[in-house]
Amino acid sequence: MVMGLSTAYSPAGSRLVAPTPLAAGAAPRRRRRSSLRPLLATVRCSVDGAATVAAEAPASRKDCFGVFCTTYDLKAEDKTRSWKKLVSIAVSGAAGMISNHLLFKLASGEVFGQDQPIALKLLGSERSFQALEGVAMELEDSLYPLLREVSIGIDPYEVFEDVDWALLIGAKPRGPGMERAALLDINGQIFADQGKALNTVASPNVKVVVVGNPCNTNALICLKNAPRIPAKNFHALTRLDENRAKCQLALKAGVFYDKVSNMTIWGNHSTTQVPDFLNAKIDGRPVKEVIKDTKWLEEEFTMTVQKRGGVLIQKWGRSSAASTAVSIVDAIRSLVTPTPEGDWFSSGVYTTGNPYGIAEDIVFSMPCRSKGDGDYELASDVLMDDFLWERIKKSEAELLAEKKCVAHLTGEGNAFCDLPEDTMLPGEM
Amino acid sequence: MVMGLSTAYSPAGSRLVAPTPLAAGAAPRRRRRSSLRPLLATVRCSVDGAATVAAEAPASRKDCFGVFCTTYDLKAEDKTRSWKKLVSIAVSGAAGMISNHLLFKLASGEVFGQDQPIALKLLGSERSFQALEGVAMELEDSLYPLLREVSIGIDPYEVFEDVDWALLIGAKPRGPGMERAALLDINGQIFADQGKALNTVASPNVKVVVVGNPCNTNALICLKNAPRIPAKNFHALTRLDENRAKCQLALKAGVFYDKVSNMTIWGNHSTTQVPDFLNAKIDGRPVKEVIKDTKWLEEEFTMTVQKRGGVLIQKWGRSSAASTAVSIVDAIRSLVTPTPEGDWFSSGVYTTGNPYGIAEDIVFSMPCRSKGDGDYELASDVLMDDFLWERIKKSEAELLAEKKCVAHLTGEGNAFCDLPEDTMLPGEM
Repeated sequence: MVMGLSTAYSPAGSRLVAPTPLAAGAAPRRRRRSSLRPLLATVRCSVDGAATVAAEAPASRKDCFGVFCTTYDLKAEDKTRSWKKLVSIAVSGAAGMISNHLLFKLASGEVFGQDQPIALKLLGSERSFQALEGVAMELEDSLYPLLREVSIGIDPYEVFEDVDWALLIGAKPRGPGMERAALLDINGQIFADQGKALNTVASPNVKVVVVGNPCNTNALICLKNAPRIPAKNFHALTRLDENRAKCQLALKAGVFYDKVSNMTIWGNHSTTQVPDFLNAKIDGRPVKEVIKDTKWLEEEFTMTVQKRGGVLIQKWGRSSAASTAVSIVDAIRSLVTPTPEGDWFSSGVYTTGNPYGIAEDIVFSMPCRSKGDGDYELASDVLMDDFLWERIKKSEAELLAEKKCVAHLTGEGNAFCDLPEDTMLPGEM
Repeated sequence: MVMGLSTAYSPAGSRLVAPTPLAAGAAPRRRRRSSLRPLLATVRCSVDGAATVAAEAPASRKDCFGVFCTTYDLKAEDKTRSWKKLVSIAVSGAAGMISNHLLFKLASGEVFGQDQPIALKLLGSERSFQALEGVAMELEDSLYPLLREVSIGIDPYEVFEDVDWALLIGAKPRGPGMERAALLDINGQIFADQGKALNTVASPNVKVVVVGNPCNTNALICLKNAPRIPAKNFHALTRLDENRAKCQLALKAGVFYDKVSNMTIWGNHSTTQVPDFLNAKIDGRPVKEVIKDTKWLEEEFTMTVQKRGGVLIQKWGRSSAASTAVSIVDAIRSLVTPTPEGDWFSSGVYTTGNPYGIAEDIVFSMPCRSKGDGDYELASDVLMDDFLWERIKKSEAELLAEKKCVAHLTGEGNAFCDLPEDTMLPGEM
């Protein structure tokens, strides 16, 4: 007898099983939408040529992958562990380099903790489907004990079903000669579709982290297409900028980077971004008291942070997938662990109700604090001066212009696109 | 006042500092060898174009990188943390894809624990030096609190100085039409040189994990060139094979992979490797009691494990860097944490004194147990039958033939190379 096993496995080769409760306290799964809308090419359940899929597989697990197609009753399995309810995480662009780092971090437990079982739902494209299978096979071979489910698919309505987190990394890179407005339109369309899918099938309290660029405006498009989900649940990733800014301040001050706190990135994840050295602290003291070189702070610091990605591409020959994945981990951890007393973190969030006077109804990076419950509040003890405010207004103007470019995707009428200059960060996505 | 800072930083731009004690209890550093042998192009300490290096830098820290060039007195820094002595880890092939996963895992604390500060010493080549800088920059931007030192270099006599661990990943891939004997010679030369360097400058109790293929024979060459270091300290990585074998048994049995234990890979990391289903257990029971399909066990199982890497390359378009890195983490963790009662893990280790009757004086994957002190003992409660033994002898014969091919590199006379067939695993390194 094999203990703790709750599966309809048959020795003939089928690894597809009837649905059973996954974790103690798991919510009952809604019917999947396959009866309502046609599947694309979503799913497969073979590990390699030697293993094939049984035809009579029940529909509700047909997107599982390989060894993860066996269903386990975690409660029955091991009385000594207190299993938490499974957290279900969708990752788009799952066959890409950032995801190739991120997925293994999620599976290892370093993001949600060593007592948190994980389901990973990988969203790719038809073109990348074989690579998705490769990623899923490598996840199998990694034997992560917390990774209880892996599924792969190309239809967001399938992949996002019941997810607690959606990490939206996939986006089209800008081709040679492509106007920024065209990029906004193409990627905006992706995020409009994914917003609609999240609205229809995701957990109503899903947290969404948008990484694909232009991430602020993509996040705005996404949340506008998902009215059922609180707008507060959407984030645009500016954490890599924050991390880079902390590192540069540490370098300049000759201290270890863990001495830098209260680092805000304001605004757009673009060259108008504002790394805030007025509020940042080094060893608890205002940066300007520690770094006396005002010219460096006002001119070189911001430029160095912005150009970091481009310098890395020159050095490394490709974009910074590893540190981007680390910053996504940091962004999620900042929402699921309490923010250290007095500190904050940066995230691109919906501006409505912000205390700073930033225009409402855009996604703007601002200082946030969390109790560790997945939610956040904006920091209120923030200093402002003219130098900082002028730069914030410039980034705000850019985001308002981007918003007009995508009005056709947010349900706000006809788009009018007049972007003054190109402010994309070099080489990111 | 900046607290806890022990650095000779000057605001003029130098980030190079006088040597200071690194961690509580850190051993005094020996003089580096730069006065004895010429440096190649080893080291640099700039983060990007904006930062330059001071000329008057003291020699003993000149291979540090960027923010890691500031030296910290960990003991003074934070009285609430009990810092362990810094663990110094060299990684060769540091600009490659496996390392791009592995370095971030080492820095995150998931390998050596959340209370263990880490120094990473990245060994690359002249050709890859810019990419090494890129990797170091991404490590900076990741703000890992445990990562206290990063240095980069291309001279193993510099990079291996005082290291506690050497993870030897870099090796030349086989070019089109290259004979296996030629590959053994080219890569063997690399590992002979690195063995000599380890012998001269590494910690006398350094643990060495050889990943670059052919890894068993490379490990043998390496240990023969490092007589000062116990031969027992050298490992050839067969953990990815072990992990894949566990996954395939779980898949076949319809159980989660954490139910599979006592999985030995015997022999060479090649197609003669022997995944051992006689001793492996599923839920504490012999595999053969759980999986009745003997034909599958005897024929398909081993083939599937061996071919996994090749299938992955087909799917994914490149070799399995992420899961290889995971398996290196597993291999190290198996040495620094106690092996669970009754279980064991596989590692390619020096055969002298083995209880199984395997030829002495080769590196052969065998079942090991550790008390978590970095050392291991061979498992003694192992079953053997004719089927298993015949396959073990075949892999042993291959390794003895490989050994003759590299006699010129191990100090055992003239090489005589007569390899009957090509048994390289497809697509691995």
